[in-house]
Parts: sequence; C-alpha cells; structure tokens
Amino acid sequence: MAMKLPLTGIIPPLATPLLSGDQLDAAGLERLIEHVLAGGVSGLFLLGTTGEGPSLGYKVRREVVERACRQVAGRVPVLVAITDTIFAESIAMARHSTDCGADAVVVAPPYYLPSGQPELSEYIEHLVAALPLPLVLYNMPSLTKVVFEPDTLRRAMDLERIIGLKDSSANMLYFNRVLGLIAQRPDWSLMIGPEELLMESLLLGAHGGVSGGANVFPELYVKLCAEARKPRGNHERLRDLHHQVLRISGNLYGVGQHSSAVIKGIKCALSCLGICDDFMAEPFHRFRDPERERIAAAVERLKGEIGKLLS
Amino acid sequence: MAMKLPLTGIIPPLATPLLSGDQLDAAGLERLIEHVLAGGVSGLFLLGTTGEGPSLGYKVRREVVERACRQVAGRVPVLVAITDTIFAESIAMARHSTDCGADAVVVAPPYYLPSGQPELSEYIEHLVAALPLPLVLYNMPSLTKVVFEPDTLRRAMDLERIIGLKDSSANMLYFNRVLGLIAQRPDWSLMIGPEELLMESLLLGAHGGVSGGANVFPELYVKLCAEARKPRGNHERLRDLHHQVLRISGNLYGVGQHSSAVIKGIKCALSCLGICDDFMAEPFHRFRDPERERIAAAVERLKGEIGKLLS
Amino acid sequence: MAMKLPLTGIIPPLATPLLSGDQLDAAGLERLIEHVLAGGVSGLFLLGTTGEGPSLGYKVRREVVERACRQVAGRVPVLVAITDTIFAESIAMARHSTDCGADAVVVAPPYYLPSGQPELSEYIEHLVAALPLPLVLYNMPSLTKVVFEPDTLRRAMDLERIIGLKDSSANMLYFNRVLGLIAQRPDWSLMIGPEELLMESLLLGAHGGVSGGANVFPELYVKLCAEARKPRGNHERLRDLHHQVLRISGNLYGVGQHSSAVIKGIKCALSCLGICDDFMAEPFHRFRDPERERIAAAVERLKGEIGKLLS
Amino acid sequence: MAMKLPLTGIIPPLATPLLSGDQLDAAGLERLIEHVLAGGVSGLFLLGTTGEGPSLGYKVRREVVERACRQVAGRVPVLVAITDTIFAESIAMARHSTDCGADAVVVAPPYYLPSGQPELSEYIEHLVAALPLPLVLYNMPSLTKVVFEPDTLRRAMDLERIIGLKDSSANMLYFNRVLGLIAQRPDWSLMIGPEELLMESLLLGAHGGVSGGANVFPELYVKLCAEARKPRGNHERLRDLHHQVLRISGNLYGVGQHSSAVIKGIKCALSCLGICDDFMAEPFHRFRDPERERIAAAVERLKGEIGKLLS
Repeated sequence: MAMKLPLTGIIPPLATPLLSGDQLDAAGLERLIEHVLAGGVSGLFLLGTTGEGPSLGYKVRREVVERACRQVAGRVPVLVAITDTIFAESIAMARHSTDCGADAVVVAPPYYLPSGQPELSEYIEHLVAALPLPLVLYNMPSLTKVVFEPDTLRRAMDLERIIGLKDSSANMLYFNRVLGLIAQRPDWSLMIGPEELLMESLLLGAHGGVSGGANVFPELYVKLCAEARKPRGNHERLRDLHHQVLRISGNLYGVGQHSSAVIKGIKCALSCLGICDDFMAEPFHRFRDPERERIAAAVERLKGEIGKLLS
Repeated sequence: MAMKLPLTGIIPPLATPLLSGDQLDAAGLERLIEHVLAGGVSGLFLLGTTGEGPSLGYKVRREVVERACRQVAGRVPVLVAITDTIFAESIAMARHSTDCGADAVVVAPPYYLPSGQPELSEYIEHLVAALPLPLVLYNMPSLTKVVFEPDTLRRAMDLERIIGLKDSSANMLYFNRVLGLIAQRPDWSLMIGPEELLMESLLLGAHGGVSGGANVFPELYVKLCAEARKPRGNHERLRDLHHQVLRISGNLYGVGQHSSAVIKGIKCALSCLGICDDFMAEPFHRFRDPERERIAAAVERLKGEIGKLLS
Repeated sequence: MAMKLPLTGIIPPLATPLLSGDQLDAAGLERLIEHVLAGGVSGLFLLGTTGEGPSLGYKVRREVVERACRQVAGRVPVLVAITDTIFAESIAMARHSTDCGADAVVVAPPYYLPSGQPELSEYIEHLVAALPLPLVLYNMPSLTKVVFEPDTLRRAMDLERIIGLKDSSANMLYFNRVLGLIAQRPDWSLMIGPEELLMESLLLGAHGGVSGGANVFPELYVKLCAEARKPRGNHERLRDLHHQVLRISGNLYGVGQHSSAVIKGIKCALSCLGICDDFMAEPFHRFRDPERERIAAAVERLKGEIGKLLS
Repeated sequence: MAMKLPLTGIIPPLATPLLSGDQLDAAGLERLIEHVLAGGVSGLFLLGTTGEGPSLGYKVRREVVERACRQVAGRVPVLVAITDTIFAESIAMARHSTDCGADAVVVAPPYYLPSGQPELSEYIEHLVAALPLPLVLYNMPSLTKVVFEPDTLRRAMDLERIIGLKDSSANMLYFNRVLGLIAQRPDWSLMIGPEELLMESLLLGAHGGVSGGANVFPELYVKLCAEARKPRGNHERLRDLHHQVLRISGNLYGVGQHSSAVIKGIKCALSCLGICDDFMAEPFHRFRDPERERIAAAVERLKGEIGKLLS
C-alpha cells in the first residue's frame, strides 16, 4: 500500500502486550490490533512511549514489528519508533521495519545526554541519510529533555524524507508555532500526543492524534477527529466527545501515582476487556488488585457512557 | 450597573500609560480606555501583569483606578488587581476600588515566598472575609511560583464571593481540568490569559479572554470571541481570526528578548498609534529606536491585515 | 562606627517578632538582638526572607530598622534589605535606613516579572545612583526567578558602592565561579545563605554566612565560622560543628511542609526559648500545638547537644 | 584482588577512545589506562556518562570492559556502569563484567520514563537479586530525571550487595543529607561526581571523587583528595589545588556550548596529549579546528600550572 500523505486521523501508540519481560503476548497483540482497526484508526504507531519501546529487549521489539505488519497486512500504515541512544540500533530497527513492510519510522532525540540544537540537526541529517523509510519526528521534551526548536524543524523541512511531527510537549504555544511553520510542506503531518488536547489541536489544524486511549476505545477518538476536521463543526457535539475523552483520562490514568500511571491504566483496561495481558516491563509492574478493581469498574462505566454517546 | 455573571468576552489587561516612574499619562489612559471600548471589549482589568501593577507605586495605582472608573462610568465592569505581598495593601486597594466604583477585584497568590496549598486556601479565606467586592482568582504560576491546584479551587468554590478564575498558566491540561470543576458554579467565569490560546480555550468552553493584544487591536479579539462562542462555528473563519492573533504576537512580542518583551511591545505599539506614552516602570525601560522602528512597521502591517480581515 | 570591609563572620537574617500582622513585638525584637549579639555575631541583616520583609507593611518595616539600629548602637554593622517590586519604595527604605544609622542595604532583583540580565544591570546602576549607603547584592533565584549571572556581577564590580554578594542559590558550582570573580575587589564580601552549606563555603573562601539558625543558636555558627577561617584547620572539629548545624536544620526546619517551614521553625523555636512571639504575617501562620510541641522538644535536645559541643 | 571497602580516592570515569562509531581505539584505551594509573588513581569507572556508555553499541561496550580489565590486571578495582532502559541488558553487562574480572557494577535509574520512588526501590531489589557483583548506585537526576531520595537510599542500605553511591546531582543540600544516612553502613562509599565540588565534598566526609578531569590530569585530583582526607589540613594548600581544578573546568569544559561540552573537552585534551583519538559517538562529534586549537593551548597552559603546583 502506498501511504497517503499527509498522515491524518487517529494513529494509536499501540500498547505492547507481554507475558513476561522478554516474551510477547502474541495472541493479545493480534486481538489488540483487530480491536483498534475495528474502531476505525488510520494507522498504528509501534514501540513508542505507550508501547514501552525503550524498556523492551531488541528481540521482542523486532517481533512486535514483524507480527504487527503481518497482521495489518497493508490495511493501514504502520509506523515504528526507532528512538535509541545507540545510533546503530536505530538504523537496525529501521531496516528491520522496512523488511517487515512498515511504512515509516519515528524518532525522538537520543534521551540520555541532551543534544544542543545544532547537534540535533546533524544527528537527524545523519539518520535520514541512513534510513530506508520516511521519518516522523517525535517531540517529547519531558522524557528526552530536548525540544525540536522551530529553527531545527525549519531545517528538517528541507529533508524530503521527513514527513511530519508528533508533538507530545503539551505546550500549545509551541504547537501553534509549529502549525505556522508547516504551511510550506503540504505533505507534512502534525499529530498531537496528549489526548486531552486532541480536540483543540484538531480545531487549530492538527492532522490527527496519537492518542493512548485509542488502544481501549478507538471509536471515540476516531469520531472526535472526524467531527473536528469538518470545515463547519457542531461545537456542542464536539465538546461532548471531548468531555468523554477527558473522562477516560480522569478515570483510567489517575489510578497510579507515577509517570507510569497512563500506561498501567491502558494495559489494565485492555486486560479487563479480555484483549491482552497487562504485564509490564521493568522498572514497572502491572496494577495490583485494588487498583485493578478500580480500573475494571471504570471500564464498565466508560463503556456505557461511550456506547450512549456514539449511538 | 449590576455586573452580569458569569463575566464573558474580552477584558483587556489594560496597559498603564506613564510619563515617568511616578507620573501617570492621564490623557493617554483616557484615550486608551476609549480605544478599547470602541473595539467592543466587555470589561477592563486594571493593574495586572500587563498593567505593570506590581512595579507601580501605590499613589499611581490609586490614580489609575480612580480615573479609569470615572472614565468608564459604568459602560462595562472594571476589575482591579490587588495582588500584593503585603496583605493590608491588598485590602486597602480593594477598598479604594470600591470607593471608586469598581466592580470586582482580582488576586494572584503573594509572589515572594510561595505558599503551600493549605496556606493558600487560608489566605484566600482571610482575604475574602475582608473584601468589599467580588473576587476573581488569577493563576499565574510562572510569576508567582504557586498554582491554584484543583482541590484549592474546589474549596474556593464554596465561597460565594469568588466568581471566577483567570488562567495564565498556558497549561491546557490544567485548563481542561478547571473546566470540569466549574460546572457546579454557573456564575463562575473561566478566562484565558495567553491570547495564543484564546481560540482553543473558547471552543473548549472558556467564557472569555484577558488578552494583552486587545489593548492595541481590541476588535479582532472581540470578533474572535464572538465567533468561537457560537454553538455552530465556521472553523475556517475562526482559524483566520486565530492566525491573525498569532501574527500579532509574532510581530509585536518577539522584538524584545526578555519576559518584559510582551509589555514593551504593547506599550510601544500604543505609542506608535498615538494613543499613549510608552514609558515603563523600573526595572524595565521602553524600546529604543531600532526596536521602535520594527514595532512601528509591524503596527502598520497588522492594521492593514486586520482591516481586511474584519471588513 | 566605620564598617570594616570586607564584611566577615555570621550576620543572622533577623526574624521579625510580631504581635499581629501590623504590630511589632518590640520587646521581643530587643531580646532577640541582645541574644544574637551575646552569641558573637558580626552584624545584623534586617527584613530579608527570614525577616518576612516582603510580607510586612512599610510602617512595620520602618519601625524594625529604627528600633534595631537604636538597640545595636554601633556594636556591629546593620544591613537592611530594601528589595521591592516598586523602585521608589526601595529608595525610600534606603533613605530611612541611613537616617536610622544603618550601615548598608541589601537588594535582590525585583521579584515579579523577571528581568533579563541587561535589564538587571541597568536597574542596579539606577539604584546605586540613588542610594545613600553601600549595597550588598542578594542572589536568591528560587524566589526571585533571576540569577545574578557572572557577567552581571563583573559589571557590578565596577560600581564602588557595591560591596558584596549574599548567595542563597545553594548552587555550589555558581558559588565557586563567583569566588573566582571577586579576587579583583578585595573589599567585596561573599556570604553564603543556606547554613547547611556554611562550612564548605567558608573552606572555599566565603567571608561569612547569613545563617537563619543563628537567630536561635548564634554561638554555634560563630564558632564554626571562626574555626573554618583559620589557615590550618581541625577537620574533625569542623565536621562536628557542621553536623550540629545539620541537626538544627533537620530538627527545626522539617516540621512544616511548605517553603514557610524554615521561618516557622525559627520563630517557633525563639518563642519556645521565651525570646519573642511567633506570630507570622500573611499568607502564613504560626505552628499550631502539635508542631509546637515537636519544636519545643527539639529545642531542648539541641540546647543540650550544643552546650556539650561548645563547652 | 579483594576490593577494599569502602571505596576511596579518585576513580576516573574513563573516557572511551573510539576510532569510529562502532570501533574502539584499543591502543588509545591502553595508553589512557596507564596514564591514569600512573597518576595514582584508586580505581576505574567504565562506560559512565563521560565514557559515553549509553551511546555505545553493546559490542563496543563489552570490548571496553574486556580490554580494561585485562590491562588493569587487578592493580585497582574496576567498576562498570550497567545503566540501561532494558533490564536484561543491564544483567547481561553485569555478567560479562564478572566474566572479565571487574569488581563492581554501577547503575543509575532507567532513564526514559521516570520511575516513582517505590518503583525505583523495587527495580533495585530485582536488579540486585540478579547481580553477580556488588553494586554502586548512581544519582544523576539531570540526565535520568529521577533522584535516589533519602528514603529510597535507606531502603537500599538493607541490601548488603549495595556498597555506595556516586552523587552527580551537584546538590550539596542532598549530599549533606546522604552523608548523615550512611553512618549505619561503614562499608558504604559516597563518591562525588562534579569535580568543582570535589574539595568541599571530601572535607564534608566524601570518600572520593569520580572526576572527569582525572582522565587528563590524574595526579592533581589524587593529590587534592589525599590532602583533603587528612584529619588536620592545610587549607591554603587545599584551596590552591581546588583552584587548579576549577581552572581545568574553566579552560576545558566551556569551549563547547551544549551538555556534551565536558566530554568533548576531555576527549580533545587527551587527543592533544597524544593519548587517544577524540572521535565521539552520535549524536555528538569531536571539536572542529577552532575549538581544538583553544583546547590545545589550554592543555599546554594547564600542564605548566599543574607541574609547578605539584612540584
């Protein structure tokens, strides 16, 4: 399948179902992929933050790409995160993704010693020169300590191979500036990370969202995206959909207390729905019983609300 | 005039025209007030951050309130910032505001030693007990180092005297949470500070904006606000208005280099338009010639663009 | 008395004894001053952060300066903080300090809208031009959001009127850089704020400390300072004194939970010792009974330990 | 060799000489090791931040450990950083280190998604259970976003296998707290990271330093450490040594502009001394000619100064 640019719509950052630290829940992955495709998503984003990419061994990562590409079989584009502190591993994962039939790769800045912006620009140039696939940049300063500054993005736009930015900064002042920049590259896609900002980002001109909650309730995000991208919108309907998104984050992501809470909430919800196992890679662990009970109750409640809203 | 609650629309944080560090540009203030009222604003917010409130001596502050209230003469509500590190001065300014006929006061947390949330709650309770006027809270953590956390806001909602929040955090995750809280107080107003976030905030449900650029081009912000608050909106029209707002901040607020750049840009633009003097209180100073020339050119350009857009 | 430069030794940031928000505990202030002078301190620093300066009304501030200068009567130098967001109030307080016989004034950057470094340099130049007394700069970025960068200090060293820096950044990398700068001004004093860093700062070359705990146990800090400034020191003795300083901060400053905990601990300890009232200005309040009991017990314990150590 | 606990003295964080991104400069590594051993260092710390550990492919990392252990041949203890976001890779590197004859391993928290403190404690427990060697913790919050909080350290002290902490936080308030904690574990070593804080840390009770500059001028750091750990010290001599350390960081680490500047300065200085190549792994690159010239001149100057000081 030729990937259509710019990328649009909801591209969930797929959770990685695990049976143990080094064993994929292959059946769970299969079910999860069918679940989100049935919800109407426009693509898959593998091995990102939500997919616990940096915590997974390379063997598991390669298996995720292989199995996901085979399962999707061209129905939607598959994007693979190749972010790494080791340059050669990023390239190796990109080559593997090509071999498996993925459509694009995604990279955040190397996340140990932070690069200055000129260093980041050179790094991206070196990477692109060695990449067999189109590249989406991934702005995630809270985890990488490095922002893709507007000037660096401008420089990156000279590289044809780069086709967009996923922005997870949650900084809407920045987001607005990037929107102003991308006019010169009509094939570029600007995707928003935090789903709480999905509606407003779309109204401002974002092409879509990489929404973690779309692992669990894909259809809601897909409907919100479609409504918001109409030239003339029904603001009340939009706000209802948006409030439902906020209810998901309010009910699923606040049960844990640390930065792992979002992924734990998503994996636990998927497990409650019978889709996949909720094992988590070190240094994290799945929710224990009291938290799981709260998630289970929340999932039931949310299912009811969303069913009513989308019917 | 009885102030209508919740407050809605554009309430500019009025710049304070000065002739010197301790002398008001009284004629400039008069012209500025008429300028923004002619643009359709829904209220005035005196002595806030843009108004250089904390840098002004008390005599000048009192004169600003007195003259502004007299000039407005009930045409729109007048809000006065009483933020101070000295409790008694906040109360004194609130009493003076009442005497002058102001409609409400606004307070940010005392901005030297940061309070914990329970301390902040008690402070607000003590303040409200001594206040003769309704109170709007002002969330401005980048300057005060203290956030009005959701739990503190919930507690504040038990106090009838408090009628809203101006949020200048630029944190839309926070903003979305506050929107969820205020459902229980239909008289509460949620106003957004940073004008780059005005459109999205309004679409999410904000009641209005305290937009610095409305000192210079009030009509643009008023039109954007009206369009965004319609139940069914024209998204393209909205985005055009929003992009024009971004062009104002791109052209006027980036000429200086420090946090004073926004106020310097606004005051200089007002001076270029012949509305008032651009003197600034210590520790800042007005733009020198090279910067002033850039602002003058930008004002002309923006006037043309806005004229076309609003015609 | 002619003040000897550079300033050296322990100069406690005097707590301000209050009976209520606008009433000084004059007898308490008298006792507190005699208490610290008896402990051997080299000066007094009035109305700083520990002295709740920014929270006090101007009438109370003026009374503190007046009474303290009269009480000290030239026995040690008196320094007065004139930090303010209002330029004219800083000047007024400096003039009042001169009239009362104070020896120097101290200023931190205006603490609402943060200045850029060139703005800060100009501000300091304007201030010095209008000051009747020598000036000590006060680096306190956690509260003012502005650092006196090394280049700004270098520029300030050209102004004869400026005679030192009190550094409360707790950033020893910065402290080391400043030590390298001040070689060119042998009359400059570098004083350390956080008492936990007193010993190491003195060994590195600091001239003294503005140690909050010296309000309560002045002799300990004075002895530590004297020992550390000897050319050949007894490291074990030094470390014992230093550990005792750490025990004070461990026992008195961690009872409260917010940034006010240090001042609350000091004032409560002074009250337990019968020296002065522990009322605190808004937005803070004195410790309630459970906390007071913990402080009272700690004061007894610490008195015993310090008695043994210094005997 | 049985490693003597607690570890003391200077343990340089060895730079990793490279010929290209995936090829070790084996001869350079040999010369570098002999250079620092000749300077009297007490151990080697491989693959840390200065050693570009996280940027190196696993094959190169394994080769570094192998060659270094063989070269050192028991003359001093060898410590190996096994920090990784992938749990299994940390374990694999620890096993390899054992096989090569290393003495201990070092771990900082996984550095992508930050752990909460309870998660960090569990992670450390899981790690220790699988480790064949003693473990030193590595506190480096500016790069890992996670602090080893005092309570977490207290919990870690219950694990016999853990034998110390390397603190690179540059937060001396924290350092002082940790010093208070480790009294209960006389076999624990507290090592300071930033060399600008080496002298004061040693005077406070640190056991030694992991000083990057000791790659280049090992003897200076070794002498400073010996002098500072005497019970009665010559403060002037100490300060002279300390100032020389500051001159190294002032002259070598400020030539670059980003966080990579320190490593670039060290590698370039080693190259100027003919010890090893200065190639750097992605996303960084060696200094170009103008910077290299500045470093070359600085190395000459520093050599002269240090020669005089130590003679």
